[in-house]
Amino acid sequence: MNSKSIRRLRAADKTFDKQLEQLLAWEAVANKEVEDTVAEILQQVRSRGDAAVIEYTNRFDRREIAQAEEFALGPEVLVEALGRIGAEERDALEVAAQRVREYHEHQRQESWRYTEADGTVLGQQITPMERVGIYVPGGKASYPSSVLMNAIPAKVAGVDSVMMVVPAPEGELNDLVLAAAAIAGVDRLYTIGGAQAVAALAYGTETIPAVDKIVGPGNIFVATAKRAVFGHVAIDMIAGPSEILVICDGVTEPDWIAMDLLSQAEHDEQAQSILLCPDEEFIDAVEVSLQRLLAELPRAHIAAKSLADRAALIQVDSLEQALEISNRIAPEHLEVSVAEPELLLPKIRNAGAIFLGRYTAEALGDYCAGPNHVLPTSGTARFSSPLGVYDFQKRSSIIYCSPEGADKLGRVAMTLARGEGLEAHARSAAFRVKR
Amino acid sequence: MNSKSIRRLRAADKTFDKQLEQLLAWEAVANKEVEDTVAEILQQVRSRGDAAVIEYTNRFDRREIAQAEEFALGPEVLVEALGRIGAEERDALEVAAQRVREYHEHQRQESWRYTEADGTVLGQQITPMERVGIYVPGGKASYPSSVLMNAIPAKVAGVDSVMMVVPAPEGELNDLVLAAAAIAGVDRLYTIGGAQAVAALAYGTETIPAVDKIVGPGNIFVATAKRAVFGHVAIDMIAGPSEILVICDGVTEPDWIAMDLLSQAEHDEQAQSILLCPDEEFIDAVEVSLQRLLAELPRAHIAAKSLADRAALIQVDSLEQALEISNRIAPEHLEVSVAEPELLLPKIRNAGAIFLGRYTAEALGDYCAGPNHVLPTSGTARFSSPLGVYDFQKRSSIIYCSPEGADKLGRVAMTLARGEGLEAHARSAAFRVKR
Repeated sequence: MNSKSIRRLRAADKTFDKQLEQLLAWEAVANKEVEDTVAEILQQVRSRGDAAVIEYTNRFDRREIAQAEEFALGPEVLVEALGRIGAEERDALEVAAQRVREYHEHQRQESWRYTEADGTVLGQQITPMERVGIYVPGGKASYPSSVLMNAIPAKVAGVDSVMMVVPAPEGELNDLVLAAAAIAGVDRLYTIGGAQAVAALAYGTETIPAVDKIVGPGNIFVATAKRAVFGHVAIDMIAGPSEILVICDGVTEPDWIAMDLLSQAEHDEQAQSILLCPDEEFIDAVEVSLQRLLAELPRAHIAAKSLADRAALIQVDSLEQALEISNRIAPEHLEVSVAEPELLLPKIRNAGAIFLGRYTAEALGDYCAGPNHVLPTSGTARFSSPLGVYDFQKRSSIIYCSPEGADKLGRVAMTLARGEGLEAHARSAAFRVKR
Repeated sequence: MNSKSIRRLRAADKTFDKQLEQLLAWEAVANKEVEDTVAEILQQVRSRGDAAVIEYTNRFDRREIAQAEEFALGPEVLVEALGRIGAEERDALEVAAQRVREYHEHQRQESWRYTEADGTVLGQQITPMERVGIYVPGGKASYPSSVLMNAIPAKVAGVDSVMMVVPAPEGELNDLVLAAAAIAGVDRLYTIGGAQAVAALAYGTETIPAVDKIVGPGNIFVATAKRAVFGHVAIDMIAGPSEILVICDGVTEPDWIAMDLLSQAEHDEQAQSILLCPDEEFIDAVEVSLQRLLAELPRAHIAAKSLADRAALIQVDSLEQALEISNRIAPEHLEVSVAEPELLLPKIRNAGAIFLGRYTAEALGDYCAGPNHVLPTSGTARFSSPLGVYDFQKRSSIIYCSPEGADKLGRVAMTLARGEGLEAHARSAAFRVKR
């Protein structure tokens, strides 16, 4: 297995902007058939509750559920799984969970207020959401790290009830996923998936209480269902394919950089790996490493297609130019594998997660460094942030006027309300103005 | 003009939960025809740029624009408007802007980091978005306060370029709106509106640079267009009708409470005003006030319909019960007009903005108290927050591993990556592990 043609670009080329645009072009394809199927599932679950959930689950996951209790499992099932996995894996999950928890503690937002000279109090009260649903894919794409990354921020935020759904095709569940849920502190588990699970979380059923927010990755049915219930409940972003952008000064081991690019490429065929480097010889060396290391990978067929279709090795004039291009791309993962990465950091404007220095492999961030691995893809780091505690908290403005404050503010409000033709607003303020 | 039948409910009734559900029922109606029209406009502007914007603007706003320069106005136009408005209105706008700015300064988030014992650095870098577009409705629903509330948080966040679009039907613009834009520090003004303005902001044209986020209220074409470009750019929430919930202990002046309810009802016929109070006689008194005060309002026809269709005066057993119902409703505006509102505050879980005490008319928050008036509607305060500075900032995770940190974390990551079958991830971590 090898990848003969990894795209080579030069930022100095006249047509570079155009080539870059083509390289990055990716848009989620809307699928009318999927949308119609999902709409029907949502409507059925909304109106018939558990009965519809059971029907779809039996059909799509080849199960024989007779009543809702069979898909609603208590926390003891999670704890049992914890006892079944190997000690090394359990330790690794616990270390990762502890680090993720510690990092996310720093994100917790606190209520604040201030008092003005006339006694008026202004502020913002922060509260956690009450119930959150976490979607976890079943089957082969079953990732325990994803359970930790989605559930822990919700728990740190103080969400009352974190509920997890995971499909169990033919009744089968992944022990590592269940163990991760136990470690993360998931409160309830439902072994359902697909659009029917999203519908149950969004609208509630006799067994499953409706949640305020649904997070977590899923297939096109799950993504379409999340998009459809958006507004009724909150959702996290709909992720595109995973991407890495590596900026290297040409001094890091070529094998290290090549493996970092491959670790992205092995995710799926649409994943994107890009290297920006001023040193042409180094780029050549990385390409040689890529070919050699690719051949030894179990998922070489996926990585090879990803490299051939979507990767690029780009020669830049300078690290400055690399940063400028990186800000335009707004990558999900940005590795800055250079001698003094701290000097470049202030110039990084758009990126989901930034990995500084030669020792910080992107893979460490996927599992256990501490920051979240749910990150904005497809250039959305221009306006989105990593999943965090802030995604499970919300804010309420607080205004408490003293009589003096109401008098002063009332006069301003009356003028502005009348300028907008809203007389009841003006009179409501006027009642509190001193005669 | 009077409103004969304002709905009366009692929380003690057996059917109350059902009645409450019906009272709150409101769902944005999807309109296939509007969606198709908007899709066509988006596609035309995306592919033909300024030419399409000019065509649609001439058609929908009855204008005769020949070239893009005619709709792209510089900041001098804003400053001129500032000279044309009355001194009282200018003062009021400036006081309001200053207060809004001061409040929002408290929301600015700062980057943070910490260093672990082995030298590994973790943190989060906060950066503002580069370009933001603010939609401001034209014609009769032209609200200068909305310009302040949308533009000031973006400016406080440090957004490089705040661009405003406002339609100018027959070429006409509202001086108060332009003056508010000048005071808020809007950088560029385009006199275009509708789906074509949203498309221009989302995709960019020869004249208008593409933005990262679009905020601000608009009609159904604007809302549908925002929903359609969501994901390509960020958007604020799609607002439902405005609502107020007043919790009163029965001691505030009934006229004050009635006018607060009316100030919401005058917004539009779908607006919702609800009173929760344990005192039946007080509720009677508020109803009498409502009838009397309503008759004197210029927008009485709108307020009367809103009261008849969507309002409710609800008798509760206690203030405790009122809070419980309020948390279920998750109102946009919550007035707590009681003797000791601070005692109730910690129990308020879901609300956009909380107005404490008898002197804090909701209208003060609409204009000049300081907090934002763009708030989550239709129960979305369960999971959404007021528009704020945080909506124009984004976060990037930072990971900078020391060689020791990479060794320690690499071992954990290898175990977890192999548990997920991702060998390139494991090897990428392994390269940094000490032999």
